[in-house]
Amino acid sequence: MPQNEESAALAPAGERAETWAMNLDPAFLATSEALGDLGLCHARLQADARYPWIVLIPRVEAARELEDLTPDQRRLLMDEILAAGHAVRAAGLALGREVKKLNVGQLGNVTPQLHLHVVGRRPDDAAWPGPVWGHGAAEAYQPEALERAVAAAKVALGL
Amino acid sequence: MPQNEESAALAPAGERAETWAMNLDPAFLATSEALGDLGLCHARLQADARYPWIVLIPRVEAARELEDLTPDQRRLLMDEILAAGHAVRAAGLALGREVKKLNVGQLGNVTPQLHLHVVGRRPDDAAWPGPVWGHGAAEAYQPEALERAVAAAKVALGL
Repeated sequence: MPQNEESAALAPAGERAETWAMNLDPAFLATSEALGDLGLCHARLQADARYPWIVLIPRVEAARELEDLTPDQRRLLMDEILAAGHAVRAAGLALGREVKKLNVGQLGNVTPQLHLHVVGRRPDDAAWPGPVWGHGAAEAYQPEALERAVAAAKVALGL
Repeated sequence: MPQNEESAALAPAGERAETWAMNLDPAFLATSEALGDLGLCHARLQADARYPWIVLIPRVEAARELEDLTPDQRRLLMDEILAAGHAVRAAGLALGREVKKLNVGQLGNVTPQLHLHVVGRRPDDAAWPGPVWGHGAAEAYQPEALERAVAAAKVALGL
């Protein structure tokens, strides 16, 4: 319906994100906070106070591997991985814990919907030097710290 | 010296790879077998019989993060990650263990020289569904299996 399409086109970024979020695996909703939509990906902050950590979920139906994206989509994805790295650094600074190393991972062994992790690491973090995936249990953010991290990440991502 | 430059330009791919390999962190030499050089990356097969696993090392001095590459280099890198995925699938088939999921990781917490892992996973593998990094000790390949995996990966990569 043309009217609906027009409304969608005019919806603010936050509402578009929530609309698309209905296509997300519930596992993402349970473990992360929406940041908004980039050109290709829906971006979320992982709700784990141990690391500044952004999850990028390409808004492409049924994609499970990088192979399922077009070359143009993969190019955009690479740009958004870079942007997420800057945002993770900004969130780390906002939390008073400067990021010393970025880790990027595309696994999907547990949650098959294609997604990428961009994680800010420090030699004094919980899992260093190992990977964060599958390491211990997430730690809840204090509400004020979560707000600071989300705000810093959004500014860095232009959301 | 022009003569040396000419020799380098005419050297077969294998020798070029060995030449560039002198710039590699020794950790790579100890844990993987050279496959050869792609447009951007030096490619190696991880010497771990538990998973078909390729390591891509961009031939860019002092790079530690994706941010240290130019946009053109990152575009090439994305193409080579895709190619490495195909090669990992080919190696899995050559070993009689079809790859069911690809995992891609850029960590560098232990070995800082920029490198990417492309790993073929199966629900019956040693670390499933967790990440392979830091999980147990590598298992040596039988020489004949290593040869088969290297040959299959090279063909898939056009090396």
